Amino acid sequence: MDENQIVRLLSTRFGASSPSLVKGIGDDAAVLHPRGAREYLVITTDMLLEGVDFCRDWMTPAQLGHKSLAVNLSDLAAMGARPRFFTVSLALPRDVGIDWIKGLYRGMCALANRQGAILIGGDLSRSTAGIQTVITAIGETSDRRPVYRSGGRPGDFLYVTGVLGRAAAGLSLLWRGSLHGNNAAERKALQSHRVPEPRCEVGTWLARSRFARCMIDLSDGLSMDLPRLCAASGTGAEIWSDQLPVFTPAHRWQSDPVTLALHGGEDFELLFAVSPRKAADFEKAYPSEFPPFSRIGRLRRERGVFWSAGRGRPMQPLVPAGFDHFRSESPGIKPRTAGERTT
Amino acid sequence: MDENQIVRLLSTRFGASSPSLVKGIGDDAAVLHPRGAREYLVITTDMLLEGVDFCRDWMTPAQLGHKSLAVNLSDLAAMGARPRFFTVSLALPRDVGIDWIKGLYRGMCALANRQGAILIGGDLSRSTAGIQTVITAIGETSDRRPVYRSGGRPGDFLYVTGVLGRAAAGLSLLWRGSLHGNNAAERKALQSHRVPEPRCEVGTWLARSRFARCMIDLSDGLSMDLPRLCAASGTGAEIWSDQLPVFTPAHRWQSDPVTLALHGGEDFELLFAVSPRKAADFEKAYPSEFPPFSRIGRLRRERGVFWSAGRGRPMQPLVPAGFDHFRSESPGIKPRTAGERTT
Repeated sequence: MDENQIVRLLSTRFGASSPSLVKGIGDDAAVLHPRGAREYLVITTDMLLEGVDFCRDWMTPAQLGHKSLAVNLSDLAAMGARPRFFTVSLALPRDVGIDWIKGLYRGMCALANRQGAILIGGDLSRSTAGIQTVITAIGETSDRRPVYRSGGRPGDFLYVTGVLGRAAAGLSLLWRGSLHGNNAAERKALQSHRVPEPRCEVGTWLARSRFARCMIDLSDGLSMDLPRLCAASGTGAEIWSDQLPVFTPAHRWQSDPVTLALHGGEDFELLFAVSPRKAADFEKAYPSEFPPFSRIGRLRRERGVFWSAGRGRPMQPLVPAGFDHFRSESPGIKPRTAGERTT
Repeated sequence: MDENQIVRLLSTRFGASSPSLVKGIGDDAAVLHPRGAREYLVITTDMLLEGVDFCRDWMTPAQLGHKSLAVNLSDLAAMGARPRFFTVSLALPRDVGIDWIKGLYRGMCALANRQGAILIGGDLSRSTAGIQTVITAIGETSDRRPVYRSGGRPGDFLYVTGVLGRAAAGLSLLWRGSLHGNNAAERKALQSHRVPEPRCEVGTWLARSRFARCMIDLSDGLSMDLPRLCAASGTGAEIWSDQLPVFTPAHRWQSDPVTLALHGGEDFELLFAVSPRKAADFEKAYPSEFPPFSRIGRLRRERGVFWSAGRGRPMQPLVPAGFDHFRSESPGIKPRTAGERTT
């Protein structure tokens, strides 16, 4: 049983409805509309566990604080919601001191301040195992509904922001014992892994402008997250690998950029679909100060997710090789083998 | 550095404000008032960790599910808020199977359904250590502000709901290896520890009726939680131990009922203050179907929390002996020694 199946079990067996619950289990975040409120509230929760999601020696407390919040803000971004509030639950082993805790909050709150999110509460506990951070973030949409995973239609073009596979390239460096990086490309890759930047401004712009019909953030990798987008939209998809914004320097440390882009997790870029009728307008209107976008494929009526070397070239199934906590036989830092030229 | 000090650090260094943030760090829950909304939203988060908060062999998955949610709903009750929504983050070791997970959600959702709360999302992860549940619960107040810890005034009478020390008496049985209980009293104590009942109806009634000037739920024990209520209200307090609703059968298993009532945690009863002018009205109006209340002491102008054998008797300081995760030298199931006739 994998995580997707567990989510389905929960939503069918334990889902319930309420007039103010707009969207429950199954998207990047839940959506509430309190009676009389002008905005929709968007709520998400994500945890990072030592030994599963991170190694303590691989990042500073401030970086862990940043990342713990970033993974949540990325979910809000994928709904087109502006970050507003967050709570933090921390479980800490005894060898973690007050300076470490302050560092964690410093990194967390630096990102929070920059994105307009306010720490409103939390819980603290001793841990008999490793460090665990659990954040619940609350966002708001301005004047319209959030963007769901489900709005895509066959023929829509698929776009991503930024570069794909760079965080996984950074992780592969850490696996090789390279903690600091020997050049700008390595340092950039390590940075992407340690302090990913949630695409909040892009997400809210895509929602406000109505260009994005559906959206998801890339946390587990394209080959894991695109099928989720497709399942919600009731479509299939094809990806053109020559259009992927790959991280080419990864070649230098024996990682395949295309494999990393298809299967590497934790880029926290946005994946979204735009109607072909609006694609030209979207590409013109997209603000130049945002991270660049790439048109990487399209949604199809036929089910299944495929990839090809380029548009019109022979297609093959895109087999998920991302990290699924619940299918993994051996827990470890994700992604374990993505980018190791295994596919 | 204890948990109170960390909370103070967070609220002074990382607290920020927003027009829709009514109450941030430092109460049982945070309070939001989204623009235009009729109700206040009340948000709290609490985690339970295996080996710190519970032992897997001591409770069924359904009981753990119930308790994980109950500790959160109790925080909402202490604000006078009605439960509405919750998210669940679960970290599970590999030896936990699907039936166990279903059991957990069954127990959780049975309580949720009874209290009108809806599961809206969450996160799942493999754990390399024990089971961890982290819930964020969202409640609503009907037509008025929540009840804070800070509203108490010197002279106010202090009341509690239900029985104090019964959950700790149950825990002391578990410590002795008594998993099932040999008689009704033992089974009742075990029940209180495993499936505490959050006082949601009482909390919302106390808020709506305006009788409670300040309120907190008893999670860490009277000697830990009463000083928090006093600190927020800027008062001291005295407790009359002959008025405490103690769990007398604990005597039979060599636990002192008064010590358990003063220091035992996890009763999840409500502690609140009522103005002396309204005390008679309150006692008359209190619905008979609710768990009984007890008038156990009063707030004082003089700082410090004291207890005496009875009103007018010599007072002595009530030294906190409850469980504080961050002061504890040796992590363990709480409360470690409360009720063991050590005070």
